[in-house]
Amino acid sequence: MKVYRLVIMVLAASIGCSEITTHSINEIHVLMQQQQEAWNRGDLEAFMQPYWKNDSLMFIGKRGATYGWNKTLENYQKSYPSKEAMGILKFTNLDHQMQKDFCFVVGKWELFRQTDTLSGHYTLLWRFIDKQWVIVRDHSS
Amino acid sequence: MKVYRLVIMVLAASIGCSEITTHSINEIHVLMQQQQEAWNRGDLEAFMQPYWKNDSLMFIGKRGATYGWNKTLENYQKSYPSKEAMGILKFTNLDHQMQKDFCFVVGKWELFRQTDTLSGHYTLLWRFIDKQWVIVRDHSS
Repeated sequence: MKVYRLVIMVLAASIGCSEITTHSINEIHVLMQQQQEAWNRGDLEAFMQPYWKNDSLMFIGKRGATYGWNKTLENYQKSYPSKEAMGILKFTNLDHQMQKDFCFVVGKWELFRQTDTLSGHYTLLWRFIDKQWVIVRDHSS
Repeated sequence: MKVYRLVIMVLAASIGCSEITTHSINEIHVLMQQQQEAWNRGDLEAFMQPYWKNDSLMFIGKRGATYGWNKTLENYQKSYPSKEAMGILKFTNLDHQMQKDFCFVVGKWELFRQTDTLSGHYTLLWRFIDKQWVIVRDHSS
């Protein structure tokens, strides 16, 4: 009887620690595709949806380090005040490194506008929080 | 007998999956301190020691994306051809996110030179490979 109890306890512990990573980069690709579509229709708030809605969200860009979802949205609104200024955004992911609920993504961004084309790179740290992938750190340059 | 065998199997599986993270950010802080000391004595090769000695090392900087340890060192040598050009480097880590053998570090770099002061941010992805922490991705802007 004791042995069976031990088997059950060990099995329970084993199941608890064996959260096998079933996440795929595809979930993140879909979110980034939706971000591009939101940007390209001029909807910054929809673009911002995958960013972590938390004051600890960190965005590093031309303005240095910005903390929090609202402040990050404000910065985007200042830099891109109109649909024309936003242009057409294209993300090209170059690499990702996934570990459990952690995904590091590097890529190139391009912004095609009537008057110019801008481009640069991003490194994103995605985390799986409350059953969804969110961007917790963004470094764009 | 079968039950005991099952207990042993499940225990073995359980131990296998319970690699508790014992790493501390301190190990990375020490490596970054050594990097600053190497930089400040004008030794770029020593500065580069914690970078992954692999063609898949990715460095994103002003020149865009660079792959490989040697190419990254070459770029540093071009940008900082003398001890005067290198100046005094200071790293200030702002945040880290660690998970198992994965550590994401964000910080601010400053370069104090006789003629000017440069500054910017870095995001580093460190991985614990072959029993040591190495930088596998660096985005500096």
